[in-house]
Amino acid sequence: MSIITLLTDFGTRDWFAGAMKGVIWSINPRVRIADITHEIESGQVSSAAFVLQCGYGCFPAGTIHVAVVDPGVGSERSAILVQTARYYFIGPDNGILSLALRHETIRQIRRFENTQLFRKPVSRTFHGRDIFAPVAARLSRGLALDRVGPRQEDYRQLSCVAPVKKKGVIEGTTIHIDGFGNVITNLPADMAQSSRAAFIRVAGCRRSIPVRSFYQAVPAGSPLALAGSHGYLEIAVNGGSAARDLGIRANTQVKLHLR
Amino acid sequence: MSIITLLTDFGTRDWFAGAMKGVIWSINPRVRIADITHEIESGQVSSAAFVLQCGYGCFPAGTIHVAVVDPGVGSERSAILVQTARYYFIGPDNGILSLALRHETIRQIRRFENTQLFRKPVSRTFHGRDIFAPVAARLSRGLALDRVGPRQEDYRQLSCVAPVKKKGVIEGTTIHIDGFGNVITNLPADMAQSSRAAFIRVAGCRRSIPVRSFYQAVPAGSPLALAGSHGYLEIAVNGGSAARDLGIRANTQVKLHLR
Amino acid sequence: MSIITLLTDFGTRDWFAGAMKGVIWSINPRVRIADITHEIESGQVSSAAFVLQCGYGCFPAGTIHVAVVDPGVGSERSAILVQTARYYFIGPDNGILSLALRHETIRQIRRFENTQLFRKPVSRTFHGRDIFAPVAARLSRGLALDRVGPRQEDYRQLSCVAPVKKKGVIEGTTIHIDGFGNVITNLPADMAQSSRAAFIRVAGCRRSIPVRSFYQAVPAGSPLALAGSHGYLEIAVNGGSAARDLGIRANTQVKLHLR
Repeated sequence: MSIITLLTDFGTRDWFAGAMKGVIWSINPRVRIADITHEIESGQVSSAAFVLQCGYGCFPAGTIHVAVVDPGVGSERSAILVQTARYYFIGPDNGILSLALRHETIRQIRRFENTQLFRKPVSRTFHGRDIFAPVAARLSRGLALDRVGPRQEDYRQLSCVAPVKKKGVIEGTTIHIDGFGNVITNLPADMAQSSRAAFIRVAGCRRSIPVRSFYQAVPAGSPLALAGSHGYLEIAVNGGSAARDLGIRANTQVKLHLR
Repeated sequence: MSIITLLTDFGTRDWFAGAMKGVIWSINPRVRIADITHEIESGQVSSAAFVLQCGYGCFPAGTIHVAVVDPGVGSERSAILVQTARYYFIGPDNGILSLALRHETIRQIRRFENTQLFRKPVSRTFHGRDIFAPVAARLSRGLALDRVGPRQEDYRQLSCVAPVKKKGVIEGTTIHIDGFGNVITNLPADMAQSSRAAFIRVAGCRRSIPVRSFYQAVPAGSPLALAGSHGYLEIAVNGGSAARDLGIRANTQVKLHLR
Repeated sequence: MSIITLLTDFGTRDWFAGAMKGVIWSINPRVRIADITHEIESGQVSSAAFVLQCGYGCFPAGTIHVAVVDPGVGSERSAILVQTARYYFIGPDNGILSLALRHETIRQIRRFENTQLFRKPVSRTFHGRDIFAPVAARLSRGLALDRVGPRQEDYRQLSCVAPVKKKGVIEGTTIHIDGFGNVITNLPADMAQSSRAAFIRVAGCRRSIPVRSFYQAVPAGSPLALAGSHGYLEIAVNGGSAARDLGIRANTQVKLHLR
């Protein structure tokens, strides 16, 4: 009765997510499959890492989380399986797992090397179907971890992940646009709760956006930055969509100005 | 082998629906979960009520229907569980269940008060994950209904639901835009089938839309109003999208003019 | 432990796909259901046929594939069940199954005639719920094929499916826009790999699009035609969306010019 979750940027218009489910159920017809989302913006690893971090922890212990946003597919980037105290995580080693893993106690990390576990032939572009789905399905049937490949010591962090502090300013980046149009940044929420936080500016956007505690602290239709329940500073518009109304996208530089 | 259905306005880009599934399967790993939709327009309770009414009855007896479009989340609105002769319904008591319940024989209504059943801590904004999902999952495992909370006598109706008749005109409102762009109103379909029905007008739209019996009764690209199979009068464009072509949205006033 | 897959143009905003699942689980609560997609462009049978062809083969033997894009619903078009060496296929007999069936060994074809298997009453517009879902569910419980209806000899092909060769030019059509905006045509991929292939032109689009072997063979932002992994010639933009950047839609004429 184990569970596999799927999180990708494959969209839902094509056969990609369905093909992964077919491969999984061909190997283990009893496993349950839950889509977290297939609508990560194409290639946005940081956005996928953020969504995984927010969603993975609701699943029961033993769940296998598969996250595939993989702009380096076909190149030399490696793929990993990470066993933590509660879960398994599978994905390319490009930072996609890193935000979730910060909250977990890591037991071991294995690099995919045993090609016997893969679907044949392995395509150059669809490792979700050919590599990640079959390894996850075999794991759900009790595959020994040392069959996957050799241990490795560490996993890659997101390149964007550490905000940089310069005098009077903290520089960061936007990492995810949620379905309401709220823009989540990589700045820790406690920065927004500091009394020194004054306003935030977004590259390519002229407005200074004030830091406030809740939506209604600004007039309807006005932007604000506030601490999100996910632990990051978020840019929103009271009653609107910050992404649309301000034209902000993922992977854009932001600067938090201090008093 | 029970089933839980989910109907929300959470969208499918984020982790929200996935988180609900994780919570449900953490409590009852054997229950089946069916998404009805997560793409109700944000906060449109009447639209959710309409979609639930159209879809719930295809599921087998014993199914637990969870509907969460909840603009009042965090306020004093109550949450309810309704047992009918065939099903269970769970949601905020804001009218979202009311159109479906009209067709059902109600056995009892319970107001959520037993916080022991909830996921801790309960957030202010995500009761789908923290309250509705865990109560539904416990119910699927046989929770006694009196554990949920005290009985209440009635449930809230949609405020928009009763059309108003004035001399020569019946006033109503649009309640749902379907995926084809058809605009469903709260006017009963038999009004459209009356020989007295002449045309309909939509607030903010200059055209008079004639009442007809079928799409091809007007030229391709032209609008009409007709009786929908769901029991309501619907505005459509022959071969087009009424929502897009006429710019009609949910929650807009309509007036049916009689001869 | 059998599996039913669903592929439709019903969208995911309404109750349509959920209703099919409810009907299926009412008849067989143990069967697994996988959505391939519900976002085929409305009425585009060739697009559905292409997506089915790409996705069906990942599922285990015995899977029942249900494909419903059915612009002729309510007319005299017939519905069929096709048993092949590995799978069952169910859908309207309008070509939607034809691309997948080319790869399969057909055992028998049955035309739906036994109305006792249907949900009552059968609506004029929602055969996915009333006819296709219940027959698929009964099949998953072991329904004898001769109960469905009489054998028929053949199934309909897509009308667009055969490219036409004229002097120096091969005429075909676009059949699917994938989620990345790549435009798949009905021209076999080996035509693109021939040294004689020079360029392709799309009706309503002035540019000559060169045939190349891989994306990076043209500058970023430029269009090309190349052999897709699905076996067809595909039109793409390096780093962009051919559908959006060039304004190409499904069911548009293309001409491959030879040297």
